[in-house]
Amino acid sequence: MGDPIALFERARAGDRRALARMLSLLEEGGEAAARLSAHLFPYTGNAYVIGITGPPGSGKSTLVNALARAYRDRGETVGIIAVDPTSPFTGGALLGDRIRMQDVAMDPGVFIRSMATRGSLGGLARATQEVLRALDAVGFQRILVETVGAGQVEVDIARAADTVVVVQAPGLGDDIQAIKAGILEIADILVVNKADREGAAATLHILRSMLSLGQPAVIRHHGQTMAIQRVEPATEGWTPPILQTVALSGQGIPELVEAIERHRVYLEQSGEGEARRRRRVAEELAARVRERLWARIAQRVGRARLDGLVDQLVRREIDFSTAVEQLLEGLG
Amino acid sequence: MGDPIALFERARAGDRRALARMLSLLEEGGEAAARLSAHLFPYTGNAYVIGITGPPGSGKSTLVNALARAYRDRGETVGIIAVDPTSPFTGGALLGDRIRMQDVAMDPGVFIRSMATRGSLGGLARATQEVLRALDAVGFQRILVETVGAGQVEVDIARAADTVVVVQAPGLGDDIQAIKAGILEIADILVVNKADREGAAATLHILRSMLSLGQPAVIRHHGQTMAIQRVEPATEGWTPPILQTVALSGQGIPELVEAIERHRVYLEQSGEGEARRRRRVAEELAARVRERLWARIAQRVGRARLDGLVDQLVRREIDFSTAVEQLLEGLG
Repeated sequence: MGDPIALFERARAGDRRALARMLSLLEEGGEAAARLSAHLFPYTGNAYVIGITGPPGSGKSTLVNALARAYRDRGETVGIIAVDPTSPFTGGALLGDRIRMQDVAMDPGVFIRSMATRGSLGGLARATQEVLRALDAVGFQRILVETVGAGQVEVDIARAADTVVVVQAPGLGDDIQAIKAGILEIADILVVNKADREGAAATLHILRSMLSLGQPAVIRHHGQTMAIQRVEPATEGWTPPILQTVALSGQGIPELVEAIERHRVYLEQSGEGEARRRRRVAEELAARVRERLWARIAQRVGRARLDGLVDQLVRREIDFSTAVEQLLEGLG
Repeated sequence: MGDPIALFERARAGDRRALARMLSLLEEGGEAAARLSAHLFPYTGNAYVIGITGPPGSGKSTLVNALARAYRDRGETVGIIAVDPTSPFTGGALLGDRIRMQDVAMDPGVFIRSMATRGSLGGLARATQEVLRALDAVGFQRILVETVGAGQVEVDIARAADTVVVVQAPGLGDDIQAIKAGILEIADILVVNKADREGAAATLHILRSMLSLGQPAVIRHHGQTMAIQRVEPATEGWTPPILQTVALSGQGIPELVEAIERHRVYLEQSGEGEARRRRRVAEELAARVRERLWARIAQRVGRARLDGLVDQLVRREIDFSTAVEQLLEGLG
């Protein structure tokens, strides 16, 4: 494996195999990963992170490919993290992604990392955060994080981004519920990809209605009248633009690049970028303190006493508040 | 609003309006909710909780309706909690559910509660847990919790169930990725609903392959060869049966009821039911202790010092481990 710090230095110097090994080490976790993570932290904070999320079939990978191409044309280095917390596939889907991404995959200014998992969702969000920081520390200027769907993990991962692009496409499934309110709420920019397909206008209409500031829209869908709840935009003072792209042909990509730049400038000038960075750091600090404190309490109290409290709870002899009080007693 | 404890007594005596008000109070949270929750805790632990989850369009609501009917025919009371963390609709979708459920909705032995939210996903899981406990405390014998999708919230909610039924249906979307590995891993029983439709055999084949204990399956899909990663079943010693139903006509429902009973007996006899109950209680206890400890630390340290640490982190002057150490210093 080699010394983790030496791996980091080689990765920073451009050694891609060292970088890949370093990322694997960080994903594994444990003592060496923690040391490495602390070591590279001072080098982070320079990359601009763009989250790209949307349902399967919306063409996210192609869009990421096109964006990466555009940034490369501007001379910027690009790191890509493709996260699929639900993929049951060992090869297929990821292989497909790689084929779609092959024109950037051959470019030495681009580094692609696929992350998938089964089961351990919380672990995936944490591992993605570590990989993101590592690509930042190693010097990638733009980092594109691609995630699938609208689950909590995707929301957590997206919150690590400076700009969140939510991708939709016409005709995904026959259910209007395919457009998830939860995911729209984290959008800084909305994209209707495959905008040359039938149904694009309807998708646009629904998105505009969901984001409009007027009365809740009422639409007819499959012969049913439905009220659409309005969605609060992610940030006050920024109305998420709704763009149309055909990622495969590159149509609309310059406009997307420009919208991301406008959002970057907005974040800087409004102070919202700084506020987001502080919020993220404060949340991570709180989470780490909570973990450490619990580990300390559990160790001090001991397995036997904890088991005893769980027994009493299972038998409903005490309630949770009482159990918490008993554990914290004498903790000063 | 009335005294929360009095509300609980009236709800226990069968007053449905008191029950609905009590649930709203619990969903709101706050001091009165905490007192009520502690008060009703000793009355909980008697209901058998069945989680039913699957993608939109799989016919979950119809299946829940059919299951509720079957339990009512056996003379059991049934509570239904329908959770959709992603619904953007104020009326439509929920109205649809209620229409589909109307034959049980008129039955005084059945109580239905719909829960939806925008944004606050963690809050939804907690609120659902409170509502679940309340229905248990009030005396419902079977509680059916219906959730959509495969996100972390659904997984959290499903883990509160004794038996988890994962519902799929043929031809949902054109993407094989519609079958989520994450959600299969929590399945105690798998159901292919709408089994009279075209494509049911293919859906069955994919599910069997994903759950088979042999080598990873290779299938052809849309002309592409794909390796399917095997999914570990939720519990060692229990192989999730794969059933076929047509919920609309009632076909396969007696077999589903029987499979749930077999799983219940398995949980009792193997000790796995007791182990799950203990694990759930231990996790909730740990989460509550972590929350309390963090609140205490944050208060003791004070806003100014916390802000100072966040500043230093944002400027990369310290790393997280150092910040955590500084916060915990002098805490004994």
